[in-house]
Amino acid sequence: MTDHTVTFTFAETGATATAQVPTGSLLVEALHRAGVDIGQPCGGQGRCGRCIVQVAAGGKVRRRSSLRLSQEDIAQGYALACQSVVEGDLYITVPPQEKIERRLTTDRIASEIRVPDGYEFTWSQTIRRVSVSLNPPSMDDQADDWSRLQTALRTKANIEQINCSIGLLSRIGTVLRESDWNVTAILDMATGETGGLARLIDLRPGIGSEEEPLWSAAIDIGTTTVTVWLVDLVTGQVKAQVAEYNGQIARGEDVVSRIIFASKNGGADELQQRVVNTINGLIELACKRVKAKPEQVVKATVVGNSTMAHLLLKIPAASIRLSPFITAVNHPPLTTTREVGLNLCPEGTVDCLPGVASYVGADITAGVLSSGVYLSEEVVLFLDVGTNGEMVLGNRDWMVTCACSAGPAFEGAGVVDGMRATEGAIEEVWVNNETYEPTYRVIGGGKPRGICGSGLISLLAEMFLTGVLDKAGNVNVDLKTRRVREGDHGGEYVIAWGAETEHGKDIVITHVDIDNLLRAKAAIYAGFTILADQVGVPLESVAKMLIGGSFGKYINVEKAVQIGLLPDMPWERFEFLGNTAIRGSYYALLSQQSRDRVADIAKRMTYIELSADNTFYEAFMSAMFLPHTDMSRFPTVEAVLRKT
Amino acid sequence: MTDHTVTFTFAETGATATAQVPTGSLLVEALHRAGVDIGQPCGGQGRCGRCIVQVAAGGKVRRRSSLRLSQEDIAQGYALACQSVVEGDLYITVPPQEKIERRLTTDRIASEIRVPDGYEFTWSQTIRRVSVSLNPPSMDDQADDWSRLQTALRTKANIEQINCSIGLLSRIGTVLRESDWNVTAILDMATGETGGLARLIDLRPGIGSEEEPLWSAAIDIGTTTVTVWLVDLVTGQVKAQVAEYNGQIARGEDVVSRIIFASKNGGADELQQRVVNTINGLIELACKRVKAKPEQVVKATVVGNSTMAHLLLKIPAASIRLSPFITAVNHPPLTTTREVGLNLCPEGTVDCLPGVASYVGADITAGVLSSGVYLSEEVVLFLDVGTNGEMVLGNRDWMVTCACSAGPAFEGAGVVDGMRATEGAIEEVWVNNETYEPTYRVIGGGKPRGICGSGLISLLAEMFLTGVLDKAGNVNVDLKTRRVREGDHGGEYVIAWGAETEHGKDIVITHVDIDNLLRAKAAIYAGFTILADQVGVPLESVAKMLIGGSFGKYINVEKAVQIGLLPDMPWERFEFLGNTAIRGSYYALLSQQSRDRVADIAKRMTYIELSADNTFYEAFMSAMFLPHTDMSRFPTVEAVLRKT
Repeated sequence: MTDHTVTFTFAETGATATAQVPTGSLLVEALHRAGVDIGQPCGGQGRCGRCIVQVAAGGKVRRRSSLRLSQEDIAQGYALACQSVVEGDLYITVPPQEKIERRLTTDRIASEIRVPDGYEFTWSQTIRRVSVSLNPPSMDDQADDWSRLQTALRTKANIEQINCSIGLLSRIGTVLRESDWNVTAILDMATGETGGLARLIDLRPGIGSEEEPLWSAAIDIGTTTVTVWLVDLVTGQVKAQVAEYNGQIARGEDVVSRIIFASKNGGADELQQRVVNTINGLIELACKRVKAKPEQVVKATVVGNSTMAHLLLKIPAASIRLSPFITAVNHPPLTTTREVGLNLCPEGTVDCLPGVASYVGADITAGVLSSGVYLSEEVVLFLDVGTNGEMVLGNRDWMVTCACSAGPAFEGAGVVDGMRATEGAIEEVWVNNETYEPTYRVIGGGKPRGICGSGLISLLAEMFLTGVLDKAGNVNVDLKTRRVREGDHGGEYVIAWGAETEHGKDIVITHVDIDNLLRAKAAIYAGFTILADQVGVPLESVAKMLIGGSFGKYINVEKAVQIGLLPDMPWERFEFLGNTAIRGSYYALLSQQSRDRVADIAKRMTYIELSADNTFYEAFMSAMFLPHTDMSRFPTVEAVLRKT
Repeated sequence: MTDHTVTFTFAETGATATAQVPTGSLLVEALHRAGVDIGQPCGGQGRCGRCIVQVAAGGKVRRRSSLRLSQEDIAQGYALACQSVVEGDLYITVPPQEKIERRLTTDRIASEIRVPDGYEFTWSQTIRRVSVSLNPPSMDDQADDWSRLQTALRTKANIEQINCSIGLLSRIGTVLRESDWNVTAILDMATGETGGLARLIDLRPGIGSEEEPLWSAAIDIGTTTVTVWLVDLVTGQVKAQVAEYNGQIARGEDVVSRIIFASKNGGADELQQRVVNTINGLIELACKRVKAKPEQVVKATVVGNSTMAHLLLKIPAASIRLSPFITAVNHPPLTTTREVGLNLCPEGTVDCLPGVASYVGADITAGVLSSGVYLSEEVVLFLDVGTNGEMVLGNRDWMVTCACSAGPAFEGAGVVDGMRATEGAIEEVWVNNETYEPTYRVIGGGKPRGICGSGLISLLAEMFLTGVLDKAGNVNVDLKTRRVREGDHGGEYVIAWGAETEHGKDIVITHVDIDNLLRAKAAIYAGFTILADQVGVPLESVAKMLIGGSFGKYINVEKAVQIGLLPDMPWERFEFLGNTAIRGSYYALLSQQSRDRVADIAKRMTYIELSADNTFYEAFMSAMFLPHTDMSRFPTVEAVLRKT
């Protein structure tokens, strides 16, 4: 096989890099070999188009797929790095890469343990800290170190049987001697899964004060964002809250892309390393704020969707996306931070909470716990929109759940000018119903770079109400305005002219974008319909609509109802709860009863597999319209339309 | 710091190697950097003299210690690599290294489980193999793989709660699918230490036959020799027996040297790797014999002295050799082959049996089990002479034990012409009582290279009975024979002239050698005395003298009594049991009751620390004579002396 030289020039900086690769290599491999990390939000499937590069004239590449490229693009040498096979020496221009900005939330920190109304919270965390002064060994008392420590813990704290890893055992002799036989043991006490055995987590020199913080972490691994709460187990208080993009984003924006990437050679290792790095970085940051050290963190309770749990533990996730959609494990056994690769106390417990199915994970069971769905006397609807959309309908007697592959359209992916809700994103749009001219608000107040989820919802609603869009989502290109025009794939609407944008190009919404958004909202609304039909409860009779996930924080309910994303019900029934997943993780961290309750919730939830439900397609198609084919479901929207 | 070039020339082959090292490096470091492995039987303390090299004239080295070097040696440039500091460019000649020959024992293989008389053996090993056919998942049954497997095992075999490592969990999905949902699970069933939880060890594709072998290993890690028995848990039969030198020998011949080496930078890692390599090699060899694969071996029961157990698990052993002589752990928790680094089934159980104290390890408790000491109605004496000497006096009601730092003199170390019992070793000597001329027998029948333990015992006895040695062990240099002469450190005796030896040099026993041997035998005999005195049982009333360890197989009891190494009692009371340690390990592997019994034995044995016993020194000094100061203890020897 011949080797070829690929020379990369980076448009942004003018820098260059080269790599030698054999015939048949993908351009992403060449980039990798040149030490360049290029984003592959779709996981290398050729679907997202973000790894686009330009091949200089004469360069021999074979394009496996050009789904995202127009004939004109191809004529200009554009190619997708993940789909282009190297067949000769190449000169490649790499356009500026999308920057994923650091986003750190610093929510208000709770000064007390707050739980939903009616929640009987018993503070019963499993970690114990016991300080003991041992009698030093002598010629008359030659007991081995480990027996001596066990005896002391039995005498002082009535702890009968203790397990200890060989790794920790190899350290206890040194700790005992260096601390003159005064030590503090950290133990994880009996839970059912460990057969009632206590487990030694750490042995620290000296007799510590009982008021000293005892650090632990509640962790929510979202497909897009990872959140960590640093919790002092002595007071039960959250002492630091930090969040950051999941480092896996560069290898796929949705779970399916990640699963595909994980199936590639070395992919599972890389994805695990990326999320572990994200968590380690967050823990370090949180610890810095409270002047603690990561190795003092002795327990982590983890929630996340089932794919995130599998990728964290490097358990193959391939069966999640293939019919009949089976997880390897819904409730992973307790493990240690060392096994997972987290830079915390090495023998610290990692407790991944139980999920229900491939697409209803521990983030949802934890959300059901913290949102109080399972306590409610009335029937409530719980929706968690992250990168996917999962929903639960029920009360304290029964719960049904399903997941919609809504896709990340509302996070800006699959939309030409879509972007995440960071600086430069258009977050709200108003369209004049006579001139069809838009006005908009940009995050940060500067020139716009794109449009984020809340902006898209608002835009769709406005376009629909002003008649720019018809019920089927088609742009009315006959309107007397330059804002509407024929694009490559159908009608499109210009939100901002190049002159007013940061990058000098028009910001538009195309027919394809609108179709993607309609699919996403239709999937979610069809989910509501199926759940309600399944149990014979009319959607409008639902007492409360609880919305979890950061998504809810920014969207305008009125507009979301107008496009038919949320059911049409009085506004006061909507409650936005923020991150319900991490709150549930926090409860389970502090309370063994809460943890058992999550397991009970997971058992009690009836999962409805939408792809196996033959009424789903019908419900989905009906919801592909604005707001829906059945206008009687959206009386307030009908009223507005009648007025305009 | 300046770098120096050290050039090594190997006397045996003429090959050369070079290394760059900074000023102040030890020569052993330079050898290591040049990729040369030189033996350090004393662990780098400068005591054994085996790492001797010759520095070419003008080479700047600083000798830290020259304990083992004469003025003449130093004048000729000789230096100990472990004690010589590099201070300039050097040319070094490395003499031929002692070869440790491969020694493989293939004992008769037991066709049935044999136990001592009166031993109630209940075959109750902890490993279970369960084959199950699972219902494949479908849209109507989306249970996760792990729950599906657990349910099947519960239904088929009534196994309630099962634990599984994340590593194994990450494999089960693939195994289930590739085997079309027909699998065989290997489990380690509840023991007290795991809180009654079963643990999944392996999941294999297909429904296996119940007669197929289920492989496990009994392992004895001796300071000198590692022995492995490969056991089929289906029949309980030993299917292969293999043994090999412990790879740690190159870093110290006795436990103290090893502990010192382990305390050096990287030393513990190296020693663990060396013994793990030895075990892996033996398992591979044993598996080859029965056409099995190492990864099919699902459990290993391990015995060894306390230092060997610590080094295997890389638990610091330093406190073992420092007063008050404390182990980090006498009974290590159950662990896995993966944690230890063995190339067996990764989640296979490693069960290190419990020891009693720093110098009475699991090899002795296992030996007490298999030799039947704890069943005996009469008082018996059990001696295990390996590299150390441990002994137990007792019966089914009580047991006392102690260990003597006999040192490896009887294994040929600390004796100028001493060597192990391999080809070329003089194994028996007879001295003519008129001419003082010796005759001898050589292992393998060729020219002698040195003298091994049994040869040394026989030589001492003959020299004593013929008057070459007096009671105090001094060579009578006034005898009319060239065989006795004045050496550097006192009188010496020539066993073989240079003309008749393999290397062309005389084989002699020096005053220092004799002193070392007397110390070793005195330590053992003094141990017997202390144990007997402790419980008020006269030594001569002991009903049986049980001797374990390979040592016993070759020694002549009569001669061992004549030098006062063994007590003077009728020959029929001596029983040589071979390797009692591995036999005990084998029982514990097959029977949970036997394993519990070992733990009970460890608890019931009263350990007497000889260094804390002020009568020991007296007993030791009395035993430094041939055979003893108190001749009434050795009536048969007195009778022989009277005749000569």
